[in-house]
Amino acid sequence: MLKQKLSGIMPPLTTPFDQVGELDYAALQRNVQRYNETGLSGYVVLGSNGEAVHINVEERLKTIQTVKQAATPAHKVIAGINELSLRAAVQSCKQARESGADAVLVVTPYFYKAAMKQDVLFGYFMEVADQSPLPVLVYNVPQNTGVIIEPATLARLAEHPNIIGVKDSSGNFGAIADTIRLAEDFSVMCGNGGILYPALSMGAAGAVLAIACAAPRACVELYQAAAAGDHARARELQNRISPISQMVTAGLGVAGLKAAMDNAGYEGGTVRSPLVQLGPAESEKLATAMRASGLFSRME
Amino acid sequence: MLKQKLSGIMPPLTTPFDQVGELDYAALQRNVQRYNETGLSGYVVLGSNGEAVHINVEERLKTIQTVKQAATPAHKVIAGINELSLRAAVQSCKQARESGADAVLVVTPYFYKAAMKQDVLFGYFMEVADQSPLPVLVYNVPQNTGVIIEPATLARLAEHPNIIGVKDSSGNFGAIADTIRLAEDFSVMCGNGGILYPALSMGAAGAVLAIACAAPRACVELYQAAAAGDHARARELQNRISPISQMVTAGLGVAGLKAAMDNAGYEGGTVRSPLVQLGPAESEKLATAMRASGLFSRME
Amino acid sequence: MLKQKLSGIMPPLTTPFDQVGELDYAALQRNVQRYNETGLSGYVVLGSNGEAVHINVEERLKTIQTVKQAATPAHKVIAGINELSLRAAVQSCKQARESGADAVLVVTPYFYKAAMKQDVLFGYFMEVADQSPLPVLVYNVPQNTGVIIEPATLARLAEHPNIIGVKDSSGNFGAIADTIRLAEDFSVMCGNGGILYPALSMGAAGAVLAIACAAPRACVELYQAAAAGDHARARELQNRISPISQMVTAGLGVAGLKAAMDNAGYEGGTVRSPLVQLGPAESEKLATAMRASGLFSRME
Amino acid sequence: MLKQKLSGIMPPLTTPFDQVGELDYAALQRNVQRYNETGLSGYVVLGSNGEAVHINVEERLKTIQTVKQAATPAHKVIAGINELSLRAAVQSCKQARESGADAVLVVTPYFYKAAMKQDVLFGYFMEVADQSPLPVLVYNVPQNTGVIIEPATLARLAEHPNIIGVKDSSGNFGAIADTIRLAEDFSVMCGNGGILYPALSMGAAGAVLAIACAAPRACVELYQAAAAGDHARARELQNRISPISQMVTAGLGVAGLKAAMDNAGYEGGTVRSPLVQLGPAESEKLATAMRASGLFSRME
Repeated sequence: MLKQKLSGIMPPLTTPFDQVGELDYAALQRNVQRYNETGLSGYVVLGSNGEAVHINVEERLKTIQTVKQAATPAHKVIAGINELSLRAAVQSCKQARESGADAVLVVTPYFYKAAMKQDVLFGYFMEVADQSPLPVLVYNVPQNTGVIIEPATLARLAEHPNIIGVKDSSGNFGAIADTIRLAEDFSVMCGNGGILYPALSMGAAGAVLAIACAAPRACVELYQAAAAGDHARARELQNRISPISQMVTAGLGVAGLKAAMDNAGYEGGTVRSPLVQLGPAESEKLATAMRASGLFSRME
Repeated sequence: MLKQKLSGIMPPLTTPFDQVGELDYAALQRNVQRYNETGLSGYVVLGSNGEAVHINVEERLKTIQTVKQAATPAHKVIAGINELSLRAAVQSCKQARESGADAVLVVTPYFYKAAMKQDVLFGYFMEVADQSPLPVLVYNVPQNTGVIIEPATLARLAEHPNIIGVKDSSGNFGAIADTIRLAEDFSVMCGNGGILYPALSMGAAGAVLAIACAAPRACVELYQAAAAGDHARARELQNRISPISQMVTAGLGVAGLKAAMDNAGYEGGTVRSPLVQLGPAESEKLATAMRASGLFSRME
Repeated sequence: MLKQKLSGIMPPLTTPFDQVGELDYAALQRNVQRYNETGLSGYVVLGSNGEAVHINVEERLKTIQTVKQAATPAHKVIAGINELSLRAAVQSCKQARESGADAVLVVTPYFYKAAMKQDVLFGYFMEVADQSPLPVLVYNVPQNTGVIIEPATLARLAEHPNIIGVKDSSGNFGAIADTIRLAEDFSVMCGNGGILYPALSMGAAGAVLAIACAAPRACVELYQAAAAGDHARARELQNRISPISQMVTAGLGVAGLKAAMDNAGYEGGTVRSPLVQLGPAESEKLATAMRASGLFSRME
Repeated sequence: MLKQKLSGIMPPLTTPFDQVGELDYAALQRNVQRYNETGLSGYVVLGSNGEAVHINVEERLKTIQTVKQAATPAHKVIAGINELSLRAAVQSCKQARESGADAVLVVTPYFYKAAMKQDVLFGYFMEVADQSPLPVLVYNVPQNTGVIIEPATLARLAEHPNIIGVKDSSGNFGAIADTIRLAEDFSVMCGNGGILYPALSMGAAGAVLAIACAAPRACVELYQAAAAGDHARARELQNRISPISQMVTAGLGVAGLKAAMDNAGYEGGTVRSPLVQLGPAESEKLATAMRASGLFSRME
């Protein structure tokens, strides 16, 4: 029995908070309804850009439910599992299923960094996959976790029938290409907007990209160009997407992504502490870069 | 009104789990009762070595209660607050107070590492301190968090009446000395067994040391020797403590510390996943080092 | 006046030493004569893989002369300038010209790492370019130097009429793509075998690749496939080249590259101390990987 | 036969350049003559702060000769050997002896960082020590080299009769204490002004400190206080020395150290490119910190 295959572009949905910091489910619903029209293949809820670490368990479950209800049946909903122990991760996987998620995106544990050897990570994900009622994607995001899961480890994990892929946000193109080459029956989702085109060229199944929260159509168009072999168009779009992608991920972070969404006609909203809103200089810099990219018609 | 001053040696208590991974409150109680006789000045519950990230909220509160009840009134109980958002941290501080803790040890947020600039950390801890019903110690532990809070930031935080000190586990002696020099009315607790003597020599208030879970008396004796100006004795003890301290912290981690406690007559017990128990070779290496240190009479 | 443009694949020639460690110019000559037939566009002499840091000034000049004489007129000869001061770098550039080099590849200074801010690097390369009698390529190789020159700095340097390009060996695909996008009239040479195809897809002028010392034809074929728009073939070759490329660069280093050359029918020879020859286990691992790649017909 | 023992405080002499960048041997001589009166035990020539990487071989030898001639017979002269190959290092050791040096300070090779495993470093220093006509100190300076030599490796090297010690500039107090504990008949010279007092407390033989170029008497006084068991005075001096030491090493670098020397009545002079002179803001910041330290009577 073959595993389910992922494909296409998915945004790691941000979680909108209102002016007093409360979760704004209605705004989330409206965002998803708008995204439904843009050619995206699904939604990642409660990933790094979803501020999963800033919300409580009730908010978490209601967020998943909200997205599932707002999404069309054709859009997969993948729930981020940001837990630091096996027990908590398995419990969250079960809750995600009850809330309607189709799959889970499970981060590498990251508190005891020195102990997170490849064999330990392998054992952990095998356990999670055994116990999770939903298919598992591994989440490699060393810029947040300080932990790297290596291509050879992913290739071993790919043999588990309940581990269907990885979201690799490391930005390490060589490692992503290695995983694509080494892991069989495994969906490699690129998690970095700056290497989308080359990752697709090397066989990535699709991508989960922060910038797709603000510029879903451009990302989808790049994906389609690459799929159609239109390399010139793919390259041109990559060159438009890269600067703005870097700015809202490596540079300005979640607050920057939310501001970019506001600029682009979605509802970004505020961030929760310890994150802070953009200052005026950062906002201006972001707006300038967005205009320069030519990707945001309402800004030109 | 002067802040309360910390002093002496405190162990960052490990959290004992039984063979099936359940929290063993009775073992925890027995450990504390034994520690009560060793000259320690207090207990840190649910710090890094307490596997705070592996237990749920109910376990957390009962752990604090258990330690508070087992400790003598003279032993301060400081509860670790390992949260990634302001909301969760403040809530945990309030719960810690309800559970009987005397102070809280609040870790630097560590998920959005790139966003954790010094000003952001400053703002975060000021907010926590404003809202916490208990005095706050800042917890700097970059080997786990990938985030460093700098001496100059700590000096600014020291002006807040509800921020009483820092546990600095970075092992960066220069930074610790800087904090001691720069921060007024502030208790700097050394969090690294390998630099205990020099940290005390430079004016550290005391220490919170993993190795004190296995060798409380030796750590207390070093503290007292330093306080009495017996530098020769302090240095000799430092040379005995350092190798074993390194092995159970930088090397073998929490599983190693728990094994060392078992060897030393305390109840270490198992670790929860993703951590794994020591293998036979590691156990033997640990036992050899413990014997060589001359600090564990029952092993010689 | 437009700058000269680089293109194609160049190997960073290794410097052959004999069994007693003396420089074997005859072997170097024979290697180049063989390479002349493989479609390479030129030669980098005395780069990182050329052990420039292990030879003295007389050897250096004779090495450049030897390569220049053995190369056909169509093959450009680029001399590595591995110096830590402006004075020494300029002198070496002049000597390189006298020895017959067509251009120089000037490494970022790397001893006072903390002082090597982007403005300092900018000023340094502007000075070098003003004084060098040969066109300058900037050499970015952070894995050896611990210093990174950023795309924005390269874009500023690209305005100097005597700075014609960069060899970027960082392996950071995003940065290479940024440089291609930002720097005008500037040849970006990819210095990392694992990202050759995507770098070419994004517009890299060519590549300087360690693995091209052992597998020149495969690298040239990939280059030609990419130029011809045969993405399927380029991708297949990339998948064959990547594992062996990683092994001889990130893994086994110069000694590994020389052993791979010996296996492939070139003359690798020994390395000079502090480098050490491969052990038997490493040699076997290398041979196995080379066989598996299908790129070395004499090994299959 | 016991090895010679080092002790006391030595400055890593800066190399004065004049306004057009030429080496000013007369200024060097005058500096040494002034230092002769300050209680220093010897001089390190051509270390990191001596810009060894910015001068040519003729300048290097004449610099050693100049210092040897200006020093009293009681002051040891240790010549830095900043070479990247065994051949060059051995040749430099021989030249250093011919120029009058009493010992050599040999840096860990640092170009092929990934290849510099502990066994490779061990083999390298054993070879250097076999061939050097002068006693060898190992130079550990990872902030410049990106290479760390570990205490266990140093302990093995200590068994060589011609390896007499280490200058450890890592600032890693734990590692320095480990080396003191593990290596027998071996002089550990602290290379970091911020940890001088604790390093001496743990048994360091002495120190080679950049700040001693500007504040030799304060460093000597701290050394003597520690030797006499006057911990209060040692600690007070440490607190005065640390901020200015950090500023001129980690912060402003060699240009800062030279400016501090100018401020303190020595002849710092200019730096060679790629280093750049301090700007006005940096100069002012330095002067303010020097005044605040109370260590520079002519500035108060």
